[in-house]
Amino acid sequence: MSQANFTEIVQEQGLEPEAKPHLRVTVLGGGSFGTAMANLAARNGCDTMMWIRDAASATEIQNSRVNKRYLPDFTLEQSLKVVSDLELAIRDRDIILIAIPSHAFRHVVQQIAPMITAQVVVSLTKGIEKDTFYFMSDIIRQELPEVPYGVLSGPNLAKEIMQGMPAGTVIASHSEQLRVAVQHALHSALFRVFASDDVHGVELGGALKNIYAVAMGMGAAYNVGENSKSMLITRALAEMSRFAVKLGANPLTFLGLSGVGDLFATCNSPLSRNYQVGYALGQGKSLQQAVEELGQTAEGINTIVQVRARAEELDVYMPITCALYEVIFEHAPPLNVALSLMKNGNRSDVEFVLPHQQLS
Amino acid sequence: MSQANFTEIVQEQGLEPEAKPHLRVTVLGGGSFGTAMANLAARNGCDTMMWIRDAASATEIQNSRVNKRYLPDFTLEQSLKVVSDLELAIRDRDIILIAIPSHAFRHVVQQIAPMITAQVVVSLTKGIEKDTFYFMSDIIRQELPEVPYGVLSGPNLAKEIMQGMPAGTVIASHSEQLRVAVQHALHSALFRVFASDDVHGVELGGALKNIYAVAMGMGAAYNVGENSKSMLITRALAEMSRFAVKLGANPLTFLGLSGVGDLFATCNSPLSRNYQVGYALGQGKSLQQAVEELGQTAEGINTIVQVRARAEELDVYMPITCALYEVIFEHAPPLNVALSLMKNGNRSDVEFVLPHQQLS
Repeated sequence: MSQANFTEIVQEQGLEPEAKPHLRVTVLGGGSFGTAMANLAARNGCDTMMWIRDAASATEIQNSRVNKRYLPDFTLEQSLKVVSDLELAIRDRDIILIAIPSHAFRHVVQQIAPMITAQVVVSLTKGIEKDTFYFMSDIIRQELPEVPYGVLSGPNLAKEIMQGMPAGTVIASHSEQLRVAVQHALHSALFRVFASDDVHGVELGGALKNIYAVAMGMGAAYNVGENSKSMLITRALAEMSRFAVKLGANPLTFLGLSGVGDLFATCNSPLSRNYQVGYALGQGKSLQQAVEELGQTAEGINTIVQVRARAEELDVYMPITCALYEVIFEHAPPLNVALSLMKNGNRSDVEFVLPHQQLS
Repeated sequence: MSQANFTEIVQEQGLEPEAKPHLRVTVLGGGSFGTAMANLAARNGCDTMMWIRDAASATEIQNSRVNKRYLPDFTLEQSLKVVSDLELAIRDRDIILIAIPSHAFRHVVQQIAPMITAQVVVSLTKGIEKDTFYFMSDIIRQELPEVPYGVLSGPNLAKEIMQGMPAGTVIASHSEQLRVAVQHALHSALFRVFASDDVHGVELGGALKNIYAVAMGMGAAYNVGENSKSMLITRALAEMSRFAVKLGANPLTFLGLSGVGDLFATCNSPLSRNYQVGYALGQGKSLQQAVEELGQTAEGINTIVQVRARAEELDVYMPITCALYEVIFEHAPPLNVALSLMKNGNRSDVEFVLPHQQLS
């Protein structure tokens, strides 16, 4: 059966929510997810701009209405403006959504700092700053100390959003006003924006999930069954939430879209680079061989290095991450990842329900 | 790549835990999961019996060492005794594991009541008693009021356990002694038994998951993408935990093997009856047509009827379950299940993190 045309159904049934207040929304960055969000906001009736550093690319997208590099199969909303003038993109706007890769995130935030007046700033970027281990919300707080901020995260493949398949995401912020504004800007009948006030919890789901996609790929190389995969997902959630709680997050956040939801989507995507690197490693290849075959590196590998170091500093028990590190960098056999799930004694299923120390 | 032989690796590396204290374990019921658990206990050195009502079947399995009907491809441990004498199976035993279908569960518990002295009793059965909406732990508590009891639940396909693929489960009980005894009886290098004290929470995961397997199959008929599937899983967890909390359970339990873990395995099993019925319904077939094609009914359908009625009584908001009910019994279009995920306003992602009433 072919894909259902949810967009048509929604229109027929009159399910689109009412027109939004005329918010002025800017997306910084022209990658696939930033483009998808800008397109949603424009369709919702917001005055929407997308900023791309490279002037030629901006002009090309502005004229052709297609983001050829990242979303070649979709025509963008007519009202969406694509610009390369940062000042124009920031001044007199209501919401700034930043969809810039983590290595360039701080630099862009520093650039916009002098232009910020009453705008709110939201990170769409999943990841951890190299060396510092800061999350994107930390960077915003550091560089724009008085600006209301938030993070948006969830299982959100841009292509599926552009196709109009039902999807949801989470906006996390301590500011209710910000949450409501972002919901107004992006919420529609086929894209649901849920709210949370656990910024670090929501951010951590998106930042850590790639680790476990590598492990899932490795498991696939061993042809493990559903029992093993389910245990991997569950133990992944256990170590993610353990780590997050150490940073002040709420473990229950991992029950939501940015936790379980994003982890499920990531681990179920055999075509992702993380999964493929894991698969190659599971077949006994070295990291170098795996990366050469793929033609590019996988983000999950960097995340493993970062999170392992940070977990050691914070004294958080993360057996899957550590076993992956040993396989990738210390020539341990890949099977150790499976065994790391098994050999840690009779512990609690969810330690926030039954603490380990209560177990004999 | 063929399946890894984890059993060999575990033996080579000397990873099997030390011999168990000589526990006397009985499994009531000769289905696939009961047989797999009995086999594990026997391999762990427990004095193990499996009780099957039908004397001829018991004798056949006892002599052939194969459970031809449920696990035809596996030879059972030599030490496992298969009996049809209930008195023999219950008297002077330490742990009674009950793996009897939910419709016959109470009757068997009533039968063993006069024989119980110091045994502990654990349910391996996932389900809800028809009409009463009692869970298996409720039945044990009602029929054996002074007996320590527990429930075992998790993503545990019996065949994969027999193959020696890594797997894990949860033993939930208020009695620490019982939890430790069950861990001793069943825990091994390839089967990990985690502990919890949230009996209803653990039980509910196993009882409700089939509902969402039906929904997942329906989604597959519409060829929905990873975003939609992830949202379904997450909203399923939201309504399961909402329901469970109303019954006194801890929502964090759903982050564990019996919650997310079992849901993930169930929703990822396209061959399951629940998934297949959902798929047929998604193609526009009626329940009758779907069941006729499959040659049997799917447990998830009954669960939908039961849970919808109970959710109404308890005033718990369960939009997916209700939408499924309307599709199956009230001729609503199957797409309503997808739309039920979308049209409920801008709510909280995890209501135990950010309560709905705090949202404007």
